[in-house]
Amino acid sequence: MKLSRLLAFSDGVFAILITILVLDFKVPTYRTGHLLTAVVQQWPVLAAYLLSFMYIGILWLFHHDLFSVFAQIDRNVNLLNLLMLFAITLINYPTSLLSHTLMQHDRRDLQVAFVSYAAIALFISATFLLLYRYLKAHPELKSKQVDPELFATISYDPLRSMLIYLASIIATPFSVSLGALLLIGGIVFHFYAYLHLSRRLAV
Amino acid sequence: MKLSRLLAFSDGVFAILITILVLDFKVPTYRTGHLLTAVVQQWPVLAAYLLSFMYIGILWLFHHDLFSVFAQIDRNVNLLNLLMLFAITLINYPTSLLSHTLMQHDRRDLQVAFVSYAAIALFISATFLLLYRYLKAHPELKSKQVDPELFATISYDPLRSMLIYLASIIATPFSVSLGALLLIGGIVFHFYAYLHLSRRLAV
Amino acid sequence: MKLSRLLAFSDGVFAILITILVLDFKVPTYRTGHLLTAVVQQWPVLAAYLLSFMYIGILWLFHHDLFSVFAQIDRNVNLLNLLMLFAITLINYPTSLLSHTLMQHDRRDLQVAFVSYAAIALFISATFLLLYRYLKAHPELKSKQVDPELFATISYDPLRSMLIYLASIIATPFSVSLGALLLIGGIVFHFYAYLHLSRRLAV
Amino acid sequence: MKLSRLLAFSDGVFAILITILVLDFKVPTYRTGHLLTAVVQQWPVLAAYLLSFMYIGILWLFHHDLFSVFAQIDRNVNLLNLLMLFAITLINYPTSLLSHTLMQHDRRDLQVAFVSYAAIALFISATFLLLYRYLKAHPELKSKQVDPELFATISYDPLRSMLIYLASIIATPFSVSLGALLLIGGIVFHFYAYLHLSRRLAV
Repeated sequence: MKLSRLLAFSDGVFAILITILVLDFKVPTYRTGHLLTAVVQQWPVLAAYLLSFMYIGILWLFHHDLFSVFAQIDRNVNLLNLLMLFAITLINYPTSLLSHTLMQHDRRDLQVAFVSYAAIALFISATFLLLYRYLKAHPELKSKQVDPELFATISYDPLRSMLIYLASIIATPFSVSLGALLLIGGIVFHFYAYLHLSRRLAV
Repeated sequence: MKLSRLLAFSDGVFAILITILVLDFKVPTYRTGHLLTAVVQQWPVLAAYLLSFMYIGILWLFHHDLFSVFAQIDRNVNLLNLLMLFAITLINYPTSLLSHTLMQHDRRDLQVAFVSYAAIALFISATFLLLYRYLKAHPELKSKQVDPELFATISYDPLRSMLIYLASIIATPFSVSLGALLLIGGIVFHFYAYLHLSRRLAV
Repeated sequence: MKLSRLLAFSDGVFAILITILVLDFKVPTYRTGHLLTAVVQQWPVLAAYLLSFMYIGILWLFHHDLFSVFAQIDRNVNLLNLLMLFAITLINYPTSLLSHTLMQHDRRDLQVAFVSYAAIALFISATFLLLYRYLKAHPELKSKQVDPELFATISYDPLRSMLIYLASIIATPFSVSLGALLLIGGIVFHFYAYLHLSRRLAV
Repeated sequence: MKLSRLLAFSDGVFAILITILVLDFKVPTYRTGHLLTAVVQQWPVLAAYLLSFMYIGILWLFHHDLFSVFAQIDRNVNLLNLLMLFAITLINYPTSLLSHTLMQHDRRDLQVAFVSYAAIALFISATFLLLYRYLKAHPELKSKQVDPELFATISYDPLRSMLIYLASIIATPFSVSLGALLLIGGIVFHFYAYLHLSRRLAV
């Protein structure tokens, strides 16, 4: 099992996913001479792209730091990593749903888009939870320099983010704004969890 | 001949292919306010994506372990690898056929989709067969640590999977369900063949 | 923080972006027997693709030389690099706007396309400015062999290119040709700035 | 100038290009129950994909062997490589033209598609010619082990293939079949030129 090929493959998937999201940014249909209005009305595409770029970017940073913990990998880590990448590639779909429904303003459709996004974010965090648990149960995979208490401290992070996304899914039918805030909150939480992990690894 | 560039190129193709499959996951056409129904009706797109992600993921794991056997490569390995990658990229097409026909429920069209998928899977296994045979005939390419009996044990695996896919092609006109089961069975077989290879290499 | 993974990820994003731009080069809609006229009328797609390929190519060369200056990276460099990649992926959108509006000849729409392109180029240069400033403030990240005066000499380059793009944005509403010339001038300036940086690093 | 980043970037572009070509393989428009006919009528898409996959695959093999000759690279090699990659990414366009016109059977449109393909192939070979000439004029870039006579022997290969593609362009207006044969002949010639280079380098 070579860690280098797992990282090359994962970096490839992250790089492709983060780049093809921009393909949703198409030339809008517009009446000749009125491109400006059409472009301005596309702000939701930019907003959704920014959100997902940030999200995937943070996930990549996480992946980057997390795999620096491994001294070696086994077959199960490879399989868990594939499952995680599967979950992450799905982000493309709710990103499109979000930009489309934000342009249409229908409340019920917006709810579907936000719930889909939060559900996939929940799934992604669940795959991180599985990987954390596996790593906890297999200390022999960890590189010696890593503080043994580190995983005791951070191992509840995926669970915490799952709760945030669950709250977002439950809140959205009552208030789209609250659901959206919780979703963005979950992504911001990832960023803090990343900083936390990154600082602990640097010590 | 540098093995490292062959692996970088192959990892790139696998990573791109597995990621662009998600582009089939488009926002459905829907009446405003009825996105939920339209999204739920897209389950075949998710099912087909999951199937092909698993399939390509397993093929990548296989490729990963198989090429760890090589101490060096020659021009023919490079050409066989290109042929294998060509066959694998074709998966994109029957994946789309499958998700479209599963949404339309026409029996004859479903048969076309399943037979196309199985035919391409058969072709992929045939390219693995060629590579196995070439590796068997050129023991000088193998790294010394590899158990010489390994290829005697596993060299019939591609042939076995080809038979499963052939059975799927023959069965589909009579029963789409049986054909589908055999197709999924072939992919599950790959997973077991991978575990088998992976365990033997780890010994 | 591993520089190698940052570079692998960035090279991936650059390579994907520069290649998917070609997807705008679609078969035109044409009457049977009149493909030639339709193909010839697509010259703006080629022109816009050439411009953006050159631009992204130069940015990649820049990235290539700039990161050879780093002896090590920290978390903020990683974040600034992500912001820079985000800005760069946006090029895909004004490239499409440009090729579409050049085929339609409407003056107002052309202005929107050129202003969008220049605005994103301005944003990209701003992210380079941030990275240059960070590198200036953190000399410990620099590799010892690099001439300490180098960043004093080149640190105004991003600001200069930002001024060119600002001039292009201001000029376009009055004269599309002048705005276009300034935009192209900005990209040519990048090339000279790259040659300048590259020569200084080679000394 | 790091050769490793040039190779990583180039491998990325080749891998992406060869994989996104498969995106032309879309589900055809068909009447429910008649998918089979529609799929069979798509043979030109498969034929065009096969041709371009082979062509790009051979170009990648060429690139692979050619750059093994370099002990170091300079800025101009980087720029020539970018120009070469630009020319190669353009293949995507005539590949689509070819598959569309082969499905429509209009003689004049077919001529446009074949001439476009051959023109871009001519351009690609021209960029190889430039790189060969540059390498010939800068022997200091070559690694010592390379036979100094090698480039005397092979340096006319790009010129030869340019002549074949020129012949294809001239022949197509008179006979589409002859033009097509010459185009395929040019790609087969690349393969022989590659074998020739590869064997000389292995000695």
